[in-house]
Amino acid sequence: MTGDTAPAPPPSGDAGPTGEAGPTGEAGLLARMLPHLRSGAEVELGPGDDAAVVRLPSPRLVVTTDTLVEGHDFLPHTTAARWIGHKAAVQNLADVAAMGARPLALVVALSAPADTPAAVFEELTIGLAARAEADGASVVGGDLGRADGLTVTVTAMGSLEEDRPAVTRAGGRPGDVLAIGAPRLGRSAAGLALVLAGRVRVEKIDPAAPRVVLSGVADPSAAELVRRHDAPDPDLALGWGAGRDAHAMMDLSDGLVRDGGRLGAASHVTVDLDRAALRPDAELLADLAAELGADPWDWVLHGGEEHAMLAAFAPGEVPDGFRPIGLLRAPAASEPTVLLDGAPIPGEGWDHFA
Amino acid sequence: MTGDTAPAPPPSGDAGPTGEAGPTGEAGLLARMLPHLRSGAEVELGPGDDAAVVRLPSPRLVVTTDTLVEGHDFLPHTTAARWIGHKAAVQNLADVAAMGARPLALVVALSAPADTPAAVFEELTIGLAARAEADGASVVGGDLGRADGLTVTVTAMGSLEEDRPAVTRAGGRPGDVLAIGAPRLGRSAAGLALVLAGRVRVEKIDPAAPRVVLSGVADPSAAELVRRHDAPDPDLALGWGAGRDAHAMMDLSDGLVRDGGRLGAASHVTVDLDRAALRPDAELLADLAAELGADPWDWVLHGGEEHAMLAAFAPGEVPDGFRPIGLLRAPAASEPTVLLDGAPIPGEGWDHFA
Repeated sequence: MTGDTAPAPPPSGDAGPTGEAGPTGEAGLLARMLPHLRSGAEVELGPGDDAAVVRLPSPRLVVTTDTLVEGHDFLPHTTAARWIGHKAAVQNLADVAAMGARPLALVVALSAPADTPAAVFEELTIGLAARAEADGASVVGGDLGRADGLTVTVTAMGSLEEDRPAVTRAGGRPGDVLAIGAPRLGRSAAGLALVLAGRVRVEKIDPAAPRVVLSGVADPSAAELVRRHDAPDPDLALGWGAGRDAHAMMDLSDGLVRDGGRLGAASHVTVDLDRAALRPDAELLADLAAELGADPWDWVLHGGEEHAMLAAFAPGEVPDGFRPIGLLRAPAASEPTVLLDGAPIPGEGWDHFA
Repeated sequence: MTGDTAPAPPPSGDAGPTGEAGPTGEAGLLARMLPHLRSGAEVELGPGDDAAVVRLPSPRLVVTTDTLVEGHDFLPHTTAARWIGHKAAVQNLADVAAMGARPLALVVALSAPADTPAAVFEELTIGLAARAEADGASVVGGDLGRADGLTVTVTAMGSLEEDRPAVTRAGGRPGDVLAIGAPRLGRSAAGLALVLAGRVRVEKIDPAAPRVVLSGVADPSAAELVRRHDAPDPDLALGWGAGRDAHAMMDLSDGLVRDGGRLGAASHVTVDLDRAALRPDAELLADLAAELGADPWDWVLHGGEEHAMLAAFAPGEVPDGFRPIGLLRAPAASEPTVLLDGAPIPGEGWDHFA
């Protein structure tokens, strides 16, 4: 974290419950957070000055930013601060990885009510830093400020080698195989369905080991689905590893149909998903879906927040770690960009402002 | 803006007034925003994919992040979306400049209620992009999401040449001259005082030219102070220009006493501010201060959000654009880090969590 946080004295609208006096102050919070950050050798200057300095392997910077907002992107009682930090890291690391680049550095802007326990800042930092470190990235700076609800914005940075084109969404070709870097799809959406059904509470008695408590759910293993939703853990090394040879790539954040449609539109192809390839994913969720009155295919086809790599490869060249789930082909007039076994798919992905 | 925005369907806590249907959707908002972004030649890949790609002049990345939150950092009726964007740019550009680096790229994460008019997104983008461009930086990507109040997090990036050390807060030496890259101090704080006194309303009849309307203030030129607070416009080129030769530098965001204390602490020196050098600043604000029952010296010494360059130079080497306002000297036991004419200063700067 840089020492200078959001600079404004609060306008008159600001009347947090402990606006006047807290036990810690910014310095106290930073003292809880900073010890959890470990800087890689490429970090010339970490938290504490106006900005951080990081030596990238190449001057071709890759950068992305993403936000999690309390009450909109998560509910406090159905997740844990550690998982929020983890998820904020993942959704940004995944965007860098999806360009075929290895993420190296993160900065984080944290806004929270004045009475937010210091432990929340600390746990969030632990989750963020641990997931970043697992992919070789350092948290190099940030910002602390006030807000009515917890808000976490992470920016992730990496670089591309000089001779290496970015893997965009636009390079898919007719005949390519669409593949996903995840063994199963739909689990995050199933976890969200449990949250939305009011079946979930997360116990933080041991903050280092939050525990999902389900109510009215027959299968206790469904807790793992909530964990997948709260703290998705995709294999992102597939992005800067085997995924670098993909024709097109993106991370699966808004559902297979919506994101597949983006890849298809950018590549000027039709994406034809393969029901047989996805059937095991749906079948493994069928019992829970029945219990919740849901369709497991909705979770598999429209569920977001997987953050796995979704990529198009030349036929016969799908690398280990990716599994084929469809084909790209030349678009026909007046058909949707994404089909399932050649037929249109009902429903749609998520749009924040639609 | 990248096409994939914050990915989560809203948990049940999310009940915005127009959560179900809006006229535009994310794509519609982006269509209003993207035309205002112009990419410099160094931008290989701008908004629209998972991440942006920017060719930096050097692989030594300089990066910082900062947030503005509605109700905490600004009040909607006392500012304008265009100014919020401008300020979000400035406070980040200033942090990069304060390292002696030229900012080149910004990303922006925008969260807002579902019923936020598209014009707010557009105006904010105009203000952000215009101020960034004025310093040679491009807005290369971002994120759109939902929140209860408007929240803007900007991350600014630049680079340092191979042979150029970062100008940190830590290089100040006894005997150095402390100088500020601003002709006057305290104006942003005076503007904030007007806001906090309930004297300010900003008319947005012409969104391109917001107008400060004051009530119960004798001097109409005070409107300029509000403008300074809402959209500070420091000369940041002093940072990557003449400021590169400073021994220590930072941007003035939390007040001269608090920020001077940070520079002093990092440099292991005492900062002795010069009352005579700052007197003109206070005198120009004296009438308004009397009207509001305030002390103009509070504004000059403790007022934040100037974002001008605060730097320490060798004696006799203060460059054009900076003006001397104090001296650094070896610290004596048990004295505060910042003094005024050798004496302790009452009051303190802003701490979000104290």
